[in-house]
Amino acid sequence: MRFLHTADWHLGRKLHGFSLQAEQEFAFQQIEQIALQQQVDGVIIAGDLYDRTLPSEQAVALFNQQLKQLNLVDHLPIYAIAGNHDSATRLATGSSWYQNTNLYLATQLAQAFEPIELADTQIFLLPYFEPFAVRQYFADAQIKTLQQAIVPVLQKIKQLFHPQKKHVLVAHFFVAGSLQTNSETPLKIGGLAAVPGNLLADFDYVALGHLHGKDALKLPNARYSGSPIKFSLSEAQQTKGVWLVDTEPFQLTFMPLKPLHDVHQLTLDFQTLMTPAYYHQFNLDDYFGFILTDQQIIPNVLSRLRKIYPNTLSVQRATAIQLSQTTFNKRSDLQQDPLQLLTKFYQQTTQRTLTTEQLKWATAALKAAQKEG
Amino acid sequence: MRFLHTADWHLGRKLHGFSLQAEQEFAFQQIEQIALQQQVDGVIIAGDLYDRTLPSEQAVALFNQQLKQLNLVDHLPIYAIAGNHDSATRLATGSSWYQNTNLYLATQLAQAFEPIELADTQIFLLPYFEPFAVRQYFADAQIKTLQQAIVPVLQKIKQLFHPQKKHVLVAHFFVAGSLQTNSETPLKIGGLAAVPGNLLADFDYVALGHLHGKDALKLPNARYSGSPIKFSLSEAQQTKGVWLVDTEPFQLTFMPLKPLHDVHQLTLDFQTLMTPAYYHQFNLDDYFGFILTDQQIIPNVLSRLRKIYPNTLSVQRATAIQLSQTTFNKRSDLQQDPLQLLTKFYQQTTQRTLTTEQLKWATAALKAAQKEG
Repeated sequence: MRFLHTADWHLGRKLHGFSLQAEQEFAFQQIEQIALQQQVDGVIIAGDLYDRTLPSEQAVALFNQQLKQLNLVDHLPIYAIAGNHDSATRLATGSSWYQNTNLYLATQLAQAFEPIELADTQIFLLPYFEPFAVRQYFADAQIKTLQQAIVPVLQKIKQLFHPQKKHVLVAHFFVAGSLQTNSETPLKIGGLAAVPGNLLADFDYVALGHLHGKDALKLPNARYSGSPIKFSLSEAQQTKGVWLVDTEPFQLTFMPLKPLHDVHQLTLDFQTLMTPAYYHQFNLDDYFGFILTDQQIIPNVLSRLRKIYPNTLSVQRATAIQLSQTTFNKRSDLQQDPLQLLTKFYQQTTQRTLTTEQLKWATAALKAAQKEG
Repeated sequence: MRFLHTADWHLGRKLHGFSLQAEQEFAFQQIEQIALQQQVDGVIIAGDLYDRTLPSEQAVALFNQQLKQLNLVDHLPIYAIAGNHDSATRLATGSSWYQNTNLYLATQLAQAFEPIELADTQIFLLPYFEPFAVRQYFADAQIKTLQQAIVPVLQKIKQLFHPQKKHVLVAHFFVAGSLQTNSETPLKIGGLAAVPGNLLADFDYVALGHLHGKDALKLPNARYSGSPIKFSLSEAQQTKGVWLVDTEPFQLTFMPLKPLHDVHQLTLDFQTLMTPAYYHQFNLDDYFGFILTDQQIIPNVLSRLRKIYPNTLSVQRATAIQLSQTTFNKRSDLQQDPLQLLTKFYQQTTQRTLTTEQLKWATAALKAAQKEG
């Protein structure tokens, strides 16, 4: 069997206020092309189809159209689950009818225990769930964390294993040891909200959703596909795409997707950014986040950058970042003279020393403050 | 052919803050029973399935379950359209798959021109539409009102008529001459927003939604089914139910639905309402609106009524209504002496004359006011 594994479509999502619909449509067309050209036996979508539990009408129209295209026009089987961004109830609309054309969309925990039986493969669709749903399902009051909840779930799934078949799990959770970026909504804080990777060892493949980078986890038999497009500046360095999964012999092939407009995070001085010889290397319709290394004030910096880079997402100062890397809470710092502290702070945040003039102002201001105290 | 005609389910609707879900489930069960016992060839739902374009998760879950029950469990064909309360886009979710099991749910104008062909009947599903949609569809800039828009729509539908078949239209609009209550959202104000009834003459039956009373329109071949339950005090006097429609020979039979809790509008004095001999005639879990005929102040009137009638929806004074029926804007009134006017006003609104004491106060107050002027 050959599957295409994608996840985290987040339809309806915006990037710093910019609509991503055109980007998402462009990525979808490539996913469809790969599925058809590679003659896959099905498309796996591992959760977070929508960006919000209450998607806009536009997002609903887009999802309905894409689902129809893949399943009713291209006649591709689909194996999909709800993610933490989806409303299980709303997403379930229509799903009882979908199965007639091999579109499987699981939104409830209990559906994980009804494997889809293909000729030589069982597919288990485990939608995103909260520990309380497992507590209820197994009537076990002890279950409080994801780490506890996943045990009986996987146990019950494994009891359903057909010994002659391959076993594919589709799930949407955080696997311990994965690398998170800041564009995913944390499912929970702390290690108890992670699934230990060794619990997944019995599956031939685990198609994961939730983390947006394909490299977030590297188990021999488990992968995040990552999102089809970049959803934040923190994902600027990621390569987006889908996995082609062959079950016999087992093989994983990453198929990259081209962005309609790429996302760049640039750390540079203003002068260089505004130089044609520099910026002409880019498609200027791309999305840009800038971290300026300049120290001096630059009037109207955002509007000047937007004249060259119309899709500027954010402008920050590099110094602000350096500041956060500096520690001022050591005991030795706290015992220093205020003027010394100020001098040190100024130097660390601006990379300059106080001028004689500035030193005079600072001394006077500190004296005045001490008098008032 | 025999159809069950219902409409205006308004799932998710509340009655003065009270959830109507249990009432709606009770009505649905009866509709299902009638459909099965009468062995209908299909269930027509003429729009306003939901109460709002953005229904709650609870309403979505209820609708999905009811649709599944009728179509996938009972194997009943369904012929449904979107109403003005529905979001056409959201409601369309799943509809491309529904047709495989004879569930037809039309949400777009163009679908009206794809009749569902039964052995001896054509069903035209015309969802709620705005005139601009017709203007766009026919590329005719002159179309601005419903009255203008309906003409080419019906013309195009009639061109599709199979001469040997019966023709059923399912639609959601206001037909000129119908009686409106205050619980329906007006589609538009004015006669141009109504469909002239004579335009519907060529259909064997027109199954209408929008108005909530079955008696709102009485054309030989067209009916509103009305809503399955009472949605406001203004509907207290209506009998709720569904139509059984036989096409050959043509026959209309109204099948009443029992309310789980009825809605009553009572105009009476407080003393009688609080008398056991009076109130024991009612199921006290019903919904009540009261118009008190008392003139004097009644302390804590709402909480005292709710002790007997826990589902009290509203309490008004009859006098307020009489006031609105009194005209004080005649020229002769305006030329009267202020004290005379006040005396007349008091008498008309309270059914009493001013006492000597009150007359003294009024005279003094008017004198003081004239001095200030």
